[in-house]
Amino acid sequence: MRYSALAPGKRLRPVLLLASCRAAGGDPGKSLDAACAVEMVHCFSLIHDDLPAIDDDDLRRGIATCHVKYGEAVAILAGDALFAFAFRLISSMDAMATIRADATAALAAAAGTPGLVAGEVLDILSEGTEPDLQAVQRIHAWKTGKLISASCEIGGMTAGAAAADCHALSEYGRWVGQAFQIADDILNETSTAEELGKAVGSDRERNKQTYPAVMGLQGAKSAARECVEKALTELQGLKGDTEALRSLAMYSIDRSV
Amino acid sequence: MRYSALAPGKRLRPVLLLASCRAAGGDPGKSLDAACAVEMVHCFSLIHDDLPAIDDDDLRRGIATCHVKYGEAVAILAGDALFAFAFRLISSMDAMATIRADATAALAAAAGTPGLVAGEVLDILSEGTEPDLQAVQRIHAWKTGKLISASCEIGGMTAGAAAADCHALSEYGRWVGQAFQIADDILNETSTAEELGKAVGSDRERNKQTYPAVMGLQGAKSAARECVEKALTELQGLKGDTEALRSLAMYSIDRSV
Repeated sequence: MRYSALAPGKRLRPVLLLASCRAAGGDPGKSLDAACAVEMVHCFSLIHDDLPAIDDDDLRRGIATCHVKYGEAVAILAGDALFAFAFRLISSMDAMATIRADATAALAAAAGTPGLVAGEVLDILSEGTEPDLQAVQRIHAWKTGKLISASCEIGGMTAGAAAADCHALSEYGRWVGQAFQIADDILNETSTAEELGKAVGSDRERNKQTYPAVMGLQGAKSAARECVEKALTELQGLKGDTEALRSLAMYSIDRSV
Repeated sequence: MRYSALAPGKRLRPVLLLASCRAAGGDPGKSLDAACAVEMVHCFSLIHDDLPAIDDDDLRRGIATCHVKYGEAVAILAGDALFAFAFRLISSMDAMATIRADATAALAAAAGTPGLVAGEVLDILSEGTEPDLQAVQRIHAWKTGKLISASCEIGGMTAGAAAADCHALSEYGRWVGQAFQIADDILNETSTAEELGKAVGSDRERNKQTYPAVMGLQGAKSAARECVEKALTELQGLKGDTEALRSLAMYSIDRSV
């Protein structure tokens, strides 16, 4: 659990959660448990996606994947335990009971069906099929978008923000998530393994549904930029400091576009 | 998810939850979401434990295990999705926010470390080691006891019961869980696959830590009966109808002792 959860990473989801809390006028220091919870859910999904039975990846975040290091059985269970720990942490964080319960429900909805796990299933089932924009968008919306969007929404919730502000943050997250995924697809095509900390070109080898596969590299790059624009417009009504969220939206496509 | 969750089974955990709600003076009809959630967590753990990388079982509840039917990738993810769905359901059930949040935290604590998943890890790590009573008890307390105990405690929570009554129900569940596990170990030694709906003698083949391995069949049977006695004494202070919980305590060792 520690090996995978503490491996070097961008911590995009917890950072988005903390920045969203600030943008909604809250104190990010009080949403650290929720931030850890979304990262644990992300890490759980990486451990399971990397398993031999699923994507069979050996390298993640620059180090051996969990099952390469500890064996398949322990990797499956380490993922499960991180998933459980995430729900324990967010449901018992230092906040009003309504916030604890609603934030937990938002996290669980983003993680399940339709959400992170369902997106992985679609991803597997679509391997080897013809590239198709709608299929790509749905896979990414579930597999990556829902948890990123929920991270932002939960950040708003921990700030005690009104439903409309939480919704705006959720929408911001949806666009940033899409931008981030397009960038990830592009990097999988154009980077070296050293730069990326994981195997490259693996999506193409498996005939995975990716944005570059559907719309070409240039099309994917301009789609990523459009997503960032849409994300930024969602921030206009928020009453807190949105500076960090603006930077993060730009950062999501930073290395790829 | 449906294939495994709806397969024939005793539904011990949800039935204990509903009966605990009644024993605490609540309306079991209002705790159905929580009851489904504990069964989903149980089912998630069965799917993952049966995987080739873990116990490698082909038969469960009288039918092919999830990975035999749908492949390993889908089985891993079906388990993950049931786990997520459980937390979604219990955190958004029709109850006061404090009950939703606290019941979710209790379920997550029982499922993780130390709890269900940690118990499975201990179980794997102890295979092939010398039989040892303390090790057996810890494995069972975590792997089976915590979720059964939490099911009873959560039943009390959904009834809006006082902390002392929830604690008594949790203790009742701990003893019943231990009785149930001893009975399960005994049945694994003495039944046919047809009676059990899963492979028999598999624990002994793997040198698993079991009660019969540590204290013999007769010792295990009298230990199971003692657990039931202790469970029944926990019910004395409850203000609701404890008849169902009394029957369930007896039922836990029914086929084995």
